[in-house]
Amino acid sequence: MKINSLMPAVYCVHALLLLCVLATVSTASRAEKRVFDMTIEDTRINLVGNRDFHTFAFDGQVPGPLIHVKEGDEVTVNVTNMTTLPHTIHWHGMLQRGTWQNDGVPGTTQEAIKPGDTYTYQFVAEPAGTMWYHCHVNVNEHVTMRGMWGPLIVEPKNPAPIEKKVTKDLIMMFSDWASKWASKPGEGGIPGDVFDYFTINGKSFPDTQPIRVKKGDVVRLRLIGSGDEFHSIHIHGHIALVAFKDGLPLAHPYQGDTFVVGPGERYDLIINMDNPGLWMVHDHVDTHTTNGDKPMGGIMTTIEYQEVGTDYPFYEWKDKKFMPDFYYEASLAKPHGIHRSKVFKGELIEE
Amino acid sequence: MKINSLMPAVYCVHALLLLCVLATVSTASRAEKRVFDMTIEDTRINLVGNRDFHTFAFDGQVPGPLIHVKEGDEVTVNVTNMTTLPHTIHWHGMLQRGTWQNDGVPGTTQEAIKPGDTYTYQFVAEPAGTMWYHCHVNVNEHVTMRGMWGPLIVEPKNPAPIEKKVTKDLIMMFSDWASKWASKPGEGGIPGDVFDYFTINGKSFPDTQPIRVKKGDVVRLRLIGSGDEFHSIHIHGHIALVAFKDGLPLAHPYQGDTFVVGPGERYDLIINMDNPGLWMVHDHVDTHTTNGDKPMGGIMTTIEYQEVGTDYPFYEWKDKKFMPDFYYEASLAKPHGIHRSKVFKGELIEE
Amino acid sequence: MKINSLMPAVYCVHALLLLCVLATVSTASRAEKRVFDMTIEDTRINLVGNRDFHTFAFDGQVPGPLIHVKEGDEVTVNVTNMTTLPHTIHWHGMLQRGTWQNDGVPGTTQEAIKPGDTYTYQFVAEPAGTMWYHCHVNVNEHVTMRGMWGPLIVEPKNPAPIEKKVTKDLIMMFSDWASKWASKPGEGGIPGDVFDYFTINGKSFPDTQPIRVKKGDVVRLRLIGSGDEFHSIHIHGHIALVAFKDGLPLAHPYQGDTFVVGPGERYDLIINMDNPGLWMVHDHVDTHTTNGDKPMGGIMTTIEYQEVGTDYPFYEWKDKKFMPDFYYEASLAKPHGIHRSKVFKGELIEE
Repeated sequence: MKINSLMPAVYCVHALLLLCVLATVSTASRAEKRVFDMTIEDTRINLVGNRDFHTFAFDGQVPGPLIHVKEGDEVTVNVTNMTTLPHTIHWHGMLQRGTWQNDGVPGTTQEAIKPGDTYTYQFVAEPAGTMWYHCHVNVNEHVTMRGMWGPLIVEPKNPAPIEKKVTKDLIMMFSDWASKWASKPGEGGIPGDVFDYFTINGKSFPDTQPIRVKKGDVVRLRLIGSGDEFHSIHIHGHIALVAFKDGLPLAHPYQGDTFVVGPGERYDLIINMDNPGLWMVHDHVDTHTTNGDKPMGGIMTTIEYQEVGTDYPFYEWKDKKFMPDFYYEASLAKPHGIHRSKVFKGELIEE
Repeated sequence: MKINSLMPAVYCVHALLLLCVLATVSTASRAEKRVFDMTIEDTRINLVGNRDFHTFAFDGQVPGPLIHVKEGDEVTVNVTNMTTLPHTIHWHGMLQRGTWQNDGVPGTTQEAIKPGDTYTYQFVAEPAGTMWYHCHVNVNEHVTMRGMWGPLIVEPKNPAPIEKKVTKDLIMMFSDWASKWASKPGEGGIPGDVFDYFTINGKSFPDTQPIRVKKGDVVRLRLIGSGDEFHSIHIHGHIALVAFKDGLPLAHPYQGDTFVVGPGERYDLIINMDNPGLWMVHDHVDTHTTNGDKPMGGIMTTIEYQEVGTDYPFYEWKDKKFMPDFYYEASLAKPHGIHRSKVFKGELIEE
Repeated sequence: MKINSLMPAVYCVHALLLLCVLATVSTASRAEKRVFDMTIEDTRINLVGNRDFHTFAFDGQVPGPLIHVKEGDEVTVNVTNMTTLPHTIHWHGMLQRGTWQNDGVPGTTQEAIKPGDTYTYQFVAEPAGTMWYHCHVNVNEHVTMRGMWGPLIVEPKNPAPIEKKVTKDLIMMFSDWASKWASKPGEGGIPGDVFDYFTINGKSFPDTQPIRVKKGDVVRLRLIGSGDEFHSIHIHGHIALVAFKDGLPLAHPYQGDTFVVGPGERYDLIINMDNPGLWMVHDHVDTHTTNGDKPMGGIMTTIEYQEVGTDYPFYEWKDKKFMPDFYYEASLAKPHGIHRSKVFKGELIEE
């Protein structure tokens, strides 16, 4: 990043401060070589109720496995395409210095991976931050509504002070689905389509999961726009600090309660859990809180404080079965590597 | 707000400056207890021309009454649901510290208010800023196009210097309507709907109202995304400073002439009125300047400088009847309290 | 701009630095008088493949001619309307101090220009930055999908240091088209329309053009939202600095890899070309990468580094015929004036 050299005098104060932080990055930490295997499989997943969808799922799950590595790691991913259509993987946000042919764009950096073939991607995990990966063939269909996306989290060698305070690290990937094409793989994602299902990590309310916290927690919410539409995420009862955009630290974080997330964008929110209660988190694009033509679905979840519990007659989720890794929180706490999650596993579709 | 304690060193210069401002907040100012009564009524409102819409209107008006209080005030609102459907009120932006069960979310913080019932909300007005209130039942219909929203302005105990310069304080709430559902209350707001009417404070051009100013005025435009769509508001002839997001002060305001407002978001623009003329203000989502299939409608208005007058043969509004409280400007200048406005009053629908 | 006088203490550090920069503006530089003639013509343009569109094109081209002037220049534009419908030109971003009747808004600042008539606009080029011009009559049709827009670039008297480093200056105007109305001038651009073609400077992939660079280049990408939809532009392999919004310098630029551009907005990205390869640039609104119902079209292009060449069997554009002025790069390097480009010229439609 020689971006700083471009900055006019007026930005220098910040640039200098930023450089001080960056300068402390240790060059002594050793990069790991990490090798992962992934498949792409015709997979039936369930968004909510009886709404199934035919996807081309990484390792048979939507979202795909969490890839969690450290800045500077040398990453190798062997991908086997077990579907009947061509695919690639683009590592959205990775700079691919010296490895542009690993950027995963058909017709620009490689031929698409044919059905049955295995392809190997190799790159250095750079820069750090909230990144993601997705197919780059017919993105209008494959990314928008065949579930071909997963999180790629690159831990910084020298985390910023604000990151060190985080006690709970969660990932939310937002997507949109046109049920018209649910069982027509290879078709759809075209102008005029009506998106009628909306998901967080592949599930619509009430099949999403609560965010469980206790007073004093510092939550990092990694919002990823992985679908076709714009979302406007509202957090009740808290002021959130936007600390990262597209994985990169903002020199000047800003506060708010409602945040627009465009396709491909990432925003990391830092939220002090200082207000015990049950709180809604949802898309304020109101029609994104429907399941088909039914209201009170889609992109909605709650924050549940341990201090207040859930035993309220009015609480829709008071008897809900809790699945702890729904936001990849448990996986993010594990050592670096690739982390699959049963929560997201679909059903193999065999012809 | 302990957000500051999360900030890395690089943000400290700003944090310190911000703290200086915050530290001057007087703790001596006395909080008032404020008690308001509101109804929810089946109400016919007119968007423009002969386009009527069946709404569930707060106190029979769209937008609902202006609630204007001071930071720290103890607010009580008694709401009586006179419609035939359940509703709640969510106080968007209020932290509800210790009062989460007053957050107004059905199935999470309360049972929805049944037809005929009265429900009481109690909370402290915190934080200060441009907030709003709206129903949280079936938001895809009730908020998007049944007019269930109104402004909640919390005056800060210690206004920032930039706020003290403001001579004209105006509220603009943007909404979208699908005429297909105009006379079908309880239905609509579903994927595939075509929004074909677009309003500022419930009215479409040419039934909106001009913003009347004189040279030297400092206008605060409080933009509130209260509908389902994204708007891109362009101010002609002026550079505006974005000073607040979601009611909260931006440490680093930025300038522009066109501003995207997502659903649920608020942006406070500060504009120096230093350029006499007649100036258009409109949504640059061009199809939002239609009424049904007719062009030159929707989200458009003008800024009229006293210095140039309106007597021009080409001016569409040269003989327009002026309604002074259309942007709640007159009400905002009155003492704190609840302010209804005849401008927004609809017609009671009796079964 | 007396905006600074509005700022609270907390912003003063930045304001002062900004003033230092502004204070160095030389008042000795002489304003030029510049007189341009333009027509508006019924023009058939080709978006991609066999998708033609009936436009009302400035000088018979889409985008319209580049108007490139210096801050403070006195600009005169004589416009002759050779179509059968009324039009105007709004100079989006120009302050029009003392010249509000030249702002180009029918019914507010003038009568629309009747077919056959010539109208003269006169204004001072202020402020500097990435501006644009467009018709203001029935914008839902004329701007959205009749190609009535072009770039207006005002060079600052005293460029910021960041601008001086730029070696390649490019313009990208994004638009959306509903093919239903392609051959029905005077109709369309109404709610419910399906936009099914998406263009950069009037062309869809694969009829767009690559961005050719060499290592060490500093690219300025001037993104202009000239259509009806929101775009989310992703740059592969690079981190971009957002340095200007709506033509105006940001006191605090921020970084990212994906940028939302709303209708009417402009963002100037500064990108260090430090990573040789072939890189995709595209809209991450995935359905905006279709041509009609065909995938892999729309808003897509590539960055081609001289260092790596284009001779790869997998590269879709390896034999592409290069048109050097597609991003107005060659024109921007010429002396100030009006610059037409054969690349954008359509075919006159005669009744």
